[in-house]
Amino acid sequence: MVRIGMLTSGGDCQSLNATMRGVAKALYRLYDDIQIIGFEDGYKGLMYSDYRIMEPRDFSGILTEGGTILGTSRQPFKLMTEPDENGLDKVELMKQTYKKLKLECLVVLGGNGSQKTANLLSEEGLNVIGLPKTIDNDLWGTDMTFGFQSAMNIATNAIDCIHTTAASHGRVFIIEVMGHKVGWLTLQAGIAGGADVILIPEIPYDIKKVAEAVKRRNKVGKRFTIIAVAEGAISKEDAALSKKELKKKQEKKTYPSVSYEIAAKLEELTGIETRVTIPGHMQRGGGPCAYDRVLSSRLGTRAAQMVYNGEYGNLVVIRNNEITKIPLKETAGKLKTVNPKDSMVEEAKLLGITFGD
Amino acid sequence: MVRIGMLTSGGDCQSLNATMRGVAKALYRLYDDIQIIGFEDGYKGLMYSDYRIMEPRDFSGILTEGGTILGTSRQPFKLMTEPDENGLDKVELMKQTYKKLKLECLVVLGGNGSQKTANLLSEEGLNVIGLPKTIDNDLWGTDMTFGFQSAMNIATNAIDCIHTTAASHGRVFIIEVMGHKVGWLTLQAGIAGGADVILIPEIPYDIKKVAEAVKRRNKVGKRFTIIAVAEGAISKEDAALSKKELKKKQEKKTYPSVSYEIAAKLEELTGIETRVTIPGHMQRGGGPCAYDRVLSSRLGTRAAQMVYNGEYGNLVVIRNNEITKIPLKETAGKLKTVNPKDSMVEEAKLLGITFGD
Amino acid sequence: MVRIGMLTSGGDCQSLNATMRGVAKALYRLYDDIQIIGFEDGYKGLMYSDYRIMEPRDFSGILTEGGTILGTSRQPFKLMTEPDENGLDKVELMKQTYKKLKLECLVVLGGNGSQKTANLLSEEGLNVIGLPKTIDNDLWGTDMTFGFQSAMNIATNAIDCIHTTAASHGRVFIIEVMGHKVGWLTLQAGIAGGADVILIPEIPYDIKKVAEAVKRRNKVGKRFTIIAVAEGAISKEDAALSKKELKKKQEKKTYPSVSYEIAAKLEELTGIETRVTIPGHMQRGGGPCAYDRVLSSRLGTRAAQMVYNGEYGNLVVIRNNEITKIPLKETAGKLKTVNPKDSMVEEAKLLGITFGD
Amino acid sequence: MVRIGMLTSGGDCQSLNATMRGVAKALYRLYDDIQIIGFEDGYKGLMYSDYRIMEPRDFSGILTEGGTILGTSRQPFKLMTEPDENGLDKVELMKQTYKKLKLECLVVLGGNGSQKTANLLSEEGLNVIGLPKTIDNDLWGTDMTFGFQSAMNIATNAIDCIHTTAASHGRVFIIEVMGHKVGWLTLQAGIAGGADVILIPEIPYDIKKVAEAVKRRNKVGKRFTIIAVAEGAISKEDAALSKKELKKKQEKKTYPSVSYEIAAKLEELTGIETRVTIPGHMQRGGGPCAYDRVLSSRLGTRAAQMVYNGEYGNLVVIRNNEITKIPLKETAGKLKTVNPKDSMVEEAKLLGITFGD
Repeated sequence: MVRIGMLTSGGDCQSLNATMRGVAKALYRLYDDIQIIGFEDGYKGLMYSDYRIMEPRDFSGILTEGGTILGTSRQPFKLMTEPDENGLDKVELMKQTYKKLKLECLVVLGGNGSQKTANLLSEEGLNVIGLPKTIDNDLWGTDMTFGFQSAMNIATNAIDCIHTTAASHGRVFIIEVMGHKVGWLTLQAGIAGGADVILIPEIPYDIKKVAEAVKRRNKVGKRFTIIAVAEGAISKEDAALSKKELKKKQEKKTYPSVSYEIAAKLEELTGIETRVTIPGHMQRGGGPCAYDRVLSSRLGTRAAQMVYNGEYGNLVVIRNNEITKIPLKETAGKLKTVNPKDSMVEEAKLLGITFGD
Repeated sequence: MVRIGMLTSGGDCQSLNATMRGVAKALYRLYDDIQIIGFEDGYKGLMYSDYRIMEPRDFSGILTEGGTILGTSRQPFKLMTEPDENGLDKVELMKQTYKKLKLECLVVLGGNGSQKTANLLSEEGLNVIGLPKTIDNDLWGTDMTFGFQSAMNIATNAIDCIHTTAASHGRVFIIEVMGHKVGWLTLQAGIAGGADVILIPEIPYDIKKVAEAVKRRNKVGKRFTIIAVAEGAISKEDAALSKKELKKKQEKKTYPSVSYEIAAKLEELTGIETRVTIPGHMQRGGGPCAYDRVLSSRLGTRAAQMVYNGEYGNLVVIRNNEITKIPLKETAGKLKTVNPKDSMVEEAKLLGITFGD
Repeated sequence: MVRIGMLTSGGDCQSLNATMRGVAKALYRLYDDIQIIGFEDGYKGLMYSDYRIMEPRDFSGILTEGGTILGTSRQPFKLMTEPDENGLDKVELMKQTYKKLKLECLVVLGGNGSQKTANLLSEEGLNVIGLPKTIDNDLWGTDMTFGFQSAMNIATNAIDCIHTTAASHGRVFIIEVMGHKVGWLTLQAGIAGGADVILIPEIPYDIKKVAEAVKRRNKVGKRFTIIAVAEGAISKEDAALSKKELKKKQEKKTYPSVSYEIAAKLEELTGIETRVTIPGHMQRGGGPCAYDRVLSSRLGTRAAQMVYNGEYGNLVVIRNNEITKIPLKETAGKLKTVNPKDSMVEEAKLLGITFGD
Repeated sequence: MVRIGMLTSGGDCQSLNATMRGVAKALYRLYDDIQIIGFEDGYKGLMYSDYRIMEPRDFSGILTEGGTILGTSRQPFKLMTEPDENGLDKVELMKQTYKKLKLECLVVLGGNGSQKTANLLSEEGLNVIGLPKTIDNDLWGTDMTFGFQSAMNIATNAIDCIHTTAASHGRVFIIEVMGHKVGWLTLQAGIAGGADVILIPEIPYDIKKVAEAVKRRNKVGKRFTIIAVAEGAISKEDAALSKKELKKKQEKKTYPSVSYEIAAKLEELTGIETRVTIPGHMQRGGGPCAYDRVLSSRLGTRAAQMVYNGEYGNLVVIRNNEITKIPLKETAGKLKTVNPKDSMVEEAKLLGITFGD
């Protein structure tokens, strides 16, 4: 009997279950005698031998379910090298569980940090295969991550809803979209939702230019302005600060998020009422969209095949519409950010969207 | 030729266009020669003769459209008795426009405040018919207002999305639902979304009881708690203050909304990470749901019939599934709030929902 | 220990699970020591002692789930009085199971036929409480059944989708809506979707009048016509036949459903291309809408309370927005059909909708 | 002043307006003085000089609207070379309008047939730029067409709805998905919806193998089977016939579509009740999904840039996530079909999906 471990790690997102279903269905088909071990709450389950023996029926009916049937937890990579609360070496604990259970391979569904840990385990000699999960689409080496399109649908729907109400009154509306470091979600939801202004971490903004865009619209009779703001949007002023100075400055802030601060400044500069909407964790929730279910099914079945072929130490990715692989050591820890000169930014500007740069 | 004026007043909501379409389609059918005048941006358009002559095609294809094709503005009733910025009497201005245009009747789509003004105009001798618009369902005299069910769908969907992400991690989630004075939307979205705690203005809460509910859930292995909070939720402590004291206290607050304050207190009391989601104006946006479109079509066509029959001075309402009417002077200004002993509250408690009372 | 049986019977619909959850949550709250028995696949499970002992966790997370966790089967009332395939008396079999399990009460979620059987069991001395399930909203004695609003959303969405494509080309589109005997779903989805023609069983149509409506629209430049047709729509000609004659005629028909026949005739009479869309069982599927979840939660908790109070032999209903009860013997078998003079039909006609009468 | 013509041709789909908006917004930005001419109902408008002068406001608010503001008509390529009803040469007529209006370029949103005509016009010396519209994703040379993902969402949602009802009863359900010649939509919606069987034109099926799959599922306790069938699904038997023989056979058929025939045969072979759902034109309807809006915005703005750069005679495409171009003469008329050995088919088989081959 071959035994495969599986875990979901980091922030949850929409297509985790669909991906695991893909892996499992293909494994049961490829192997005559296979057992899948599901670790609870991410790497924690692997550390402390907290697991379930999965049955085929566990993967039935979960294609459309949000969240993860295994649970997840955030385990930042940098904490992996620190001892746990009992002074034990975390990586050693995970290796012990792996060996004790005589796993053939560990399948890790996770984002950037989680794949870094996956790579570490791979370098320590474990057989590991990674699957690219994140609503941020910021994993280097894959064209798309599962979760992204589902999150984009929700963020776009938020902008759509705001559009009709904004058009009825004469106001500025800010929709805060998830993304602390990377702006793909805000950029694409902003384009899809017909936002007038898009502010993302990679393109620091000048609040005066944003205010001018609002005023310019009002001058030509457009009564409202829709602004899509990434959680990590940053002003040119702040972007110029050192990390230390920035941290100091942020500690003094009284606003619970960047949107409230931008709203206050815009009201001051334009005199126009500005409202804030924060869909927040909604963007990670609900079931996966059709696109994600196809992507997850494809990535999942190919992951199973890579297990079968012994192609370990890889992240399963989609590149130019084909499912392929990339060594974990090449991708782990590399962030795929928006290049301000990216063609999609250029296209957005052709639509008349302001980035405040 | 008969000429009818129409306006939408107050905060926008989802089924305004569907209602106007119903009124218009029936008017064009009932009268051989009729002209509909659409006033821009609510009562302001009536004051300053800012209007459009509507054509049948203007009402075509708007059944599913959010917002209002006429625009709207908030005109609090108490400001109606004050002179405008040029020192002119607002009610007098509106009467002048009405007379100048030789209107047979004015149809007002609006909530509580707007219907109070409608009643004032009625008492001043104008022919007025009101239609009950609001996502709050707080108009006295009607079982349902249009907008409510659409808003409920959106608030419920927000809770649904949060549910899957909450279940994957171990957290408390607060979803802030619209409603400064009235809790119907929070109560029903809370029930529909399977919230564990519901906090509404009519039932002041004890934060300790809320914290206990969270801890009780954790004790029996439920890793998360979903809390639906109305914008106007109030603690027992604050509810005991005089209006003046409360205002003073609120002025000192640094949180942009009640949810952030509750979140901070809950984290303190339970030690569990607590996140806030604010769908905000999304709840007024997007197209009307099927229920609202039926309700609006029914209310709208009956409003036209009341115009035709000269049944002026009334609000068109739904009572026991029949469309009927109630004199504006009986309903105007009366709020339909949640009675803490209401059967729906009792039913929610039977489901195990905590109100913190 | 008190033991309660529960079953879902007849065609499935969207809010069965939400209703059972309401019953169960309230039962667990009202009783210190209670056991819920779930019978599989409707009355069949009761006949043949095919059941599961339910746990509180079985009712967790099912509020939003479509279908029924207990399974269901159609058991037409008239078959109940016939012996089963082994020659045994079905009612006697059910009574035996009830007694063997020492049930305090049987809770039946079902439509018209199922409630008739429920009444029969009640008359045979069992304690029975019924809950009004059906997408047809045709149970006499309740203003609304759970399932109806969810089905209406889906049928309306189908019409919405067809609208944009119909408007781009110049065509007639028929959307076939569920309802063999009763037209509520077609009527309301038709109004909500902005249909131009609505054909329902209760109002036999003259195909020539429908064709005229299509041609009249074309004459005034409207390029398309949307027709909502109930499965049981019937022409005046056929409505005039005796049951026997009608059956004979129908046996000869080559069309798989009424829509294809109407389409063929309309193409002949108008010369305009006519397309058919059949959402079919989609209308029973997917999760319940927010409205249904509230309704189901309310009906379910009140059913539990009626069990607790021993108010047996009743159907739990909603009347004038309050949850109340009606004796099974008064309601069982009575159909709530659309009266051609119903106010909603009149309102639809004021919107300009043609019924072909 | 530069003058650009634009038209939408062939079957409508969801993101036509979003694409035109992208073209227009970018044209207005790139040129100081530009006029956009919108031809009505596809090539017909170009033939008979049936057009509107578009204004910037015409493109405002249409990002989310289904259908096409210009209207469309099917103009099969082979009819283009035949004279019109007045005996006039169609291509000549189009060239005359182009010249009379002194167009700089003609932008054509259309599918395979429409791009063939676009290429013809290009070869005749007109400046033409094509944009890849179709829910079938069957245009050779582009990774994705706009419309496909929106249609996939709708088809997937249909399967989702059927899933819950199918699971409650014990039945076989057939969902007929659009696609007469190409199976991409059925394949991907089938994967996304968790179908058990997928039948597409490119992989002729053996009905006995399909029946076996149904029976195999029943044997292991799965009470239902979901079958996604493309409109153009074909049996091995029929696929072996000559075109002439096949046509003859089809003329004799009494079923309005392939699904009813498959259903009848399956019932015969398995004895299990089989139901048919036909979402039909719903799949072309409603607003575009977020993915399509981004794709359309990108393709549209790049089309404008190609106009600006004089890069005529090209189809704007997406390849490996970048917007690029391909000469119309290389792509026109080439169909991108599903290769039975395509990796996505293989992945579907790994999921356990039966193709009946």
